Amino acid sequence: MTDSFHPPQRTLMGPGPSDVNPRILEALSRPTIGHLDPAFIGMMDEVKQLLQFAFRTKNELTIPVSAPGSAGMETVFTNLIERGEKVIICQNGVFGGRMKENVERCGGVAIMVEDEWGTPVDLGKAEQALQDHKDAVALAFVHAETSTGARSDAESLCALARKYDCLAIVDAVTSLGGIQLEVDEWGVDAIYSGTQKCLSCVPGLSPVSFSPKAVEKIKSRSSKVQSWFLDTNLVMGYWGTDAKRSYHHTAPVNSLYALHESLVILQEEGLENAWQRHADNHTAFAAGVEALGLGFVVAEEYRLPQLNAVSFPDSIADGDVRAALLNDYDLEIGAGLGALAGKVWRIGLMGYASNRRNVLFCLSALGNVLNDQGLSCDPAAAVAAARAKYAALQ
Amino acid sequence: MTDSFHPPQRTLMGPGPSDVNPRILEALSRPTIGHLDPAFIGMMDEVKQLLQFAFRTKNELTIPVSAPGSAGMETVFTNLIERGEKVIICQNGVFGGRMKENVERCGGVAIMVEDEWGTPVDLGKAEQALQDHKDAVALAFVHAETSTGARSDAESLCALARKYDCLAIVDAVTSLGGIQLEVDEWGVDAIYSGTQKCLSCVPGLSPVSFSPKAVEKIKSRSSKVQSWFLDTNLVMGYWGTDAKRSYHHTAPVNSLYALHESLVILQEEGLENAWQRHADNHTAFAAGVEALGLGFVVAEEYRLPQLNAVSFPDSIADGDVRAALLNDYDLEIGAGLGALAGKVWRIGLMGYASNRRNVLFCLSALGNVLNDQGLSCDPAAAVAAARAKYAALQ
Repeated sequence: MTDSFHPPQRTLMGPGPSDVNPRILEALSRPTIGHLDPAFIGMMDEVKQLLQFAFRTKNELTIPVSAPGSAGMETVFTNLIERGEKVIICQNGVFGGRMKENVERCGGVAIMVEDEWGTPVDLGKAEQALQDHKDAVALAFVHAETSTGARSDAESLCALARKYDCLAIVDAVTSLGGIQLEVDEWGVDAIYSGTQKCLSCVPGLSPVSFSPKAVEKIKSRSSKVQSWFLDTNLVMGYWGTDAKRSYHHTAPVNSLYALHESLVILQEEGLENAWQRHADNHTAFAAGVEALGLGFVVAEEYRLPQLNAVSFPDSIADGDVRAALLNDYDLEIGAGLGALAGKVWRIGLMGYASNRRNVLFCLSALGNVLNDQGLSCDPAAAVAAARAKYAALQ
Repeated sequence: MTDSFHPPQRTLMGPGPSDVNPRILEALSRPTIGHLDPAFIGMMDEVKQLLQFAFRTKNELTIPVSAPGSAGMETVFTNLIERGEKVIICQNGVFGGRMKENVERCGGVAIMVEDEWGTPVDLGKAEQALQDHKDAVALAFVHAETSTGARSDAESLCALARKYDCLAIVDAVTSLGGIQLEVDEWGVDAIYSGTQKCLSCVPGLSPVSFSPKAVEKIKSRSSKVQSWFLDTNLVMGYWGTDAKRSYHHTAPVNSLYALHESLVILQEEGLENAWQRHADNHTAFAAGVEALGLGFVVAEEYRLPQLNAVSFPDSIADGDVRAALLNDYDLEIGAGLGALAGKVWRIGLMGYASNRRNVLFCLSALGNVLNDQGLSCDPAAAVAAARAKYAALQ
């Protein structure tokens, strides 16, 4: 017989999931009601409004997909791209590669614009690709590369897309709620995110939003969307504005309670305040990281405050450090991914996890473990450096 | 500002979600940990074993898809069916039609075998189609039609598929945990279910299982699976047996806690005991329904104990009855779907909701509401009939 599972109590400072606010866990466990219950439909309407608030958009097609961020990515590409259509994809990390897979599996043609991992998308190269491929229908890029911690200039990239009459497709999995994001003002046409990053909600849902121009492209498709489950034409029969909602699939009711609560919390704090909090905790953390003698992969001006790719000397056994942090401190930090595997740690300061306690705790624990592993450093000095930065920020 | 959402406390006796066991809601709200945390990977292994137990299979590819049952259906078709391949689909309700959509969106050809709604799949017609289409690669059908409450003979249909060298694809969304289901013994090749029916878990996950023969077909595909998110070749890098699990998508961690707990509960009760409980509560409920003067859509021998399609006189305003039950009794029953819309109620006795209290409560509440709506009936007699049946069952 298998026993009930009782997870350890971790501090989650990896690339996500991030620490979940206890208010959200409590909301998650409220009694399940039917997915067509009038009370539930009312909550769904609030979730849509709250997502419009978080994305800063008036887009009517703004909903949470009933599956994780990867399914949000697929929702965007499978709805927008038809067989033979060209999409320019700016890749500067893992998730650009996933976009390529998505486009190709939709029968589209992916034109790749490669940038070095850890750098932002190069605007010049993106524009060159747009000039070279006038028949492209979309420009796609990752706003906040979770695999490297680099922030790209989403506003300028959207402007470029518009200039060449392309749809702007944005991966905002790690950016939503953590850094400035302006869907309407920047002219984003299709965007997807995740719940388990800066919204500090449980993983499993993917907020998406489509501009009227994107919706028009979906409506004028010559072929059916190849995924029945992700077909927004069908999903909107359930999530749309008609008084009568028709069943499409059974919504993940409790996960949506959790998303609702996480967005209520974000609204209480205010978007700008949340962005500022992420920035401040990063600043303090970065001071501590440098005091430990460690480096950053990403140049300062392009660093994501919520995802810190921290490099370490070759002498350090990556896996041993992470295992010691997990086993001795119940602290999770992330491993490097793809080209950065074994070369960096990805230390998240996302959403609820972006707080002073976590910053000081992580610096202290990491410093102690590094000392154990033979890298001489001064955890107390790192903590002091972070505290000094906090004091200066006030 | 939007306030936190506090759902009403309903009794869920519709077609799902069903009442969730409080143990499962509690498990759901346990602290989130990382999707690559060793503690989580250990729990994933248990979930796979527990699903093998529930499906009665040794299939290695037995996992929960990170999305609702509709995505489980899509996982099966999108992995198994390639462009131009023929699938024979037996349709006797809504979900056969959804299978057709899935096959066609994979580029396959759906050969439809239609049966009247409320009847089981006709074996003779299925065999005729297999004879007429020797090039078909699969026979697909719904074991327990949630839209009508009819049970089809899955064992015989699987045998037919085998006889004609077709894969047997089974929709077990509403059957798993509620009625006998023997994946290995019956020779099921691909099967999907949902968590929110007879497992009484929250909605949002879809257990699936593929036989070695099905896996072989997936491995020998000439084209990539068109969905990146649902591609089992990739998903198994994360859910597989390799000691090192590679990241594919972020698993819905807390929902998996809940599924684990629901399967632990099922194991504690025992599969046969769970099936018997569903049968017994249905028998008592049916006696009460008849005492109220209402009828069943499905002939007795094909009735699903967990989903009762109850017909009512034309004079009754369907929506008013359901609204009164919801508003006055916090009791949800389901509306008819598709061809049965406005003609039946779908009353679920699924999983945790399949209990004596719910049976007696529903009969009493429904009888009272029917009286209010001008249909003369005797709720007390209905309750007495059900109680008498329970006594006889002991």
